[in-house]
Amino acid sequence: MPQQRRAQATRRAIVIAAAEEFDRVGYDATPLSAILRRSGVTKGAFYFHFASKESLAAALIQLQNRRWPTLRQRWLGRGLDPLSVAIGMVDEATRLIEEDVVLRAGTSLARHRIADEVVERRSGVDWETLLADLLRRSAERGLLRSGVEPAEVARVVHAAMIGARTLGSERRGGPGAAARTSEVWRVTLRGVASAEWLSSHQLPGAVR
Amino acid sequence: MPQQRRAQATRRAIVIAAAEEFDRVGYDATPLSAILRRSGVTKGAFYFHFASKESLAAALIQLQNRRWPTLRQRWLGRGLDPLSVAIGMVDEATRLIEEDVVLRAGTSLARHRIADEVVERRSGVDWETLLADLLRRSAERGLLRSGVEPAEVARVVHAAMIGARTLGSERRGGPGAAARTSEVWRVTLRGVASAEWLSSHQLPGAVR
Repeated sequence: MPQQRRAQATRRAIVIAAAEEFDRVGYDATPLSAILRRSGVTKGAFYFHFASKESLAAALIQLQNRRWPTLRQRWLGRGLDPLSVAIGMVDEATRLIEEDVVLRAGTSLARHRIADEVVERRSGVDWETLLADLLRRSAERGLLRSGVEPAEVARVVHAAMIGARTLGSERRGGPGAAARTSEVWRVTLRGVASAEWLSSHQLPGAVR
Repeated sequence: MPQQRRAQATRRAIVIAAAEEFDRVGYDATPLSAILRRSGVTKGAFYFHFASKESLAAALIQLQNRRWPTLRQRWLGRGLDPLSVAIGMVDEATRLIEEDVVLRAGTSLARHRIADEVVERRSGVDWETLLADLLRRSAERGLLRSGVEPAEVARVVHAAMIGARTLGSERRGGPGAAARTSEVWRVTLRGVASAEWLSSHQLPGAVR
């Protein structure tokens, strides 16, 4: 069905153009006209696919929401210890967000529109709860130093993930989001992971 | 001079109303009309003080820019070791930002408008460079564990500060920005500070 394929290509062009504009100047500062210009799509074609800029934002949020449960399942199914799962999952998510503008724009919209009713935020993955769960299981298996509070470490790593993403795209010349997130693990794990775990596992690589 | 005092009060009302609106919905999503409504100031009075919404944003950025060098000087002048200075300075800055909406809005504008020519960003304090400097001095004095890379720790703490601020205001029911920043120090210092430093210093308090 070439007509259907053409419609899909148009929709995809709109989604990518919107993601690029939102990523560049933010959702609020992006007029519909900028999305039309960048995608080369007419207003009529746009409204065939999306009712409004809001519904386009909702589509971007849903696109990224759908990615994380798959990523989580894949890492949980690899038979690794829970601390390695936490590290691998966070590192892969950060790299994907750094590389894929659609994912990056959707993640940013999901974070900034928490109070909105347009989209059910719960359909995504709550990183802080997921990390706290993996770290609690790590503690139960003796992979963390004694006295470490798993929920506290989860909050710190989550905050550093968010900040690494912000700074990685803001500060030119410095390391990007993925390299900064590897640093977060290297610095926090020194005081968090047990000596045995540290001696038998490779920490995320140094800044590229 | 009651007239001059009245003018100052009007200017202050505009600044606070703008900070509250920017903090609530963001700079781009705040129309001038919302600032006028919240401050109870007429359009004419507004334009007596500010040429535009942009120049008001520039004023907010300048207000926070002026606060940090003073804070830095005060902490550097207290005769503490550099690691204690880094911790105390970051904790106080985060608490001030959490408590003062004008400072919070100004800091957020300064971060998000880095590419803008409206304001010289350099007039503020570059936290990442400042932290790297204090941590390097800490390493020179033997306050850090061997093998710790001061610049890397500075980047991680800086990212976590930024993320703690974002999450502290976004996630209801969880700890606020200041409590989250104390956690950042507690978690990172375990693997970063020397055993001697840790045994002789109180770490920032537990989540309130």
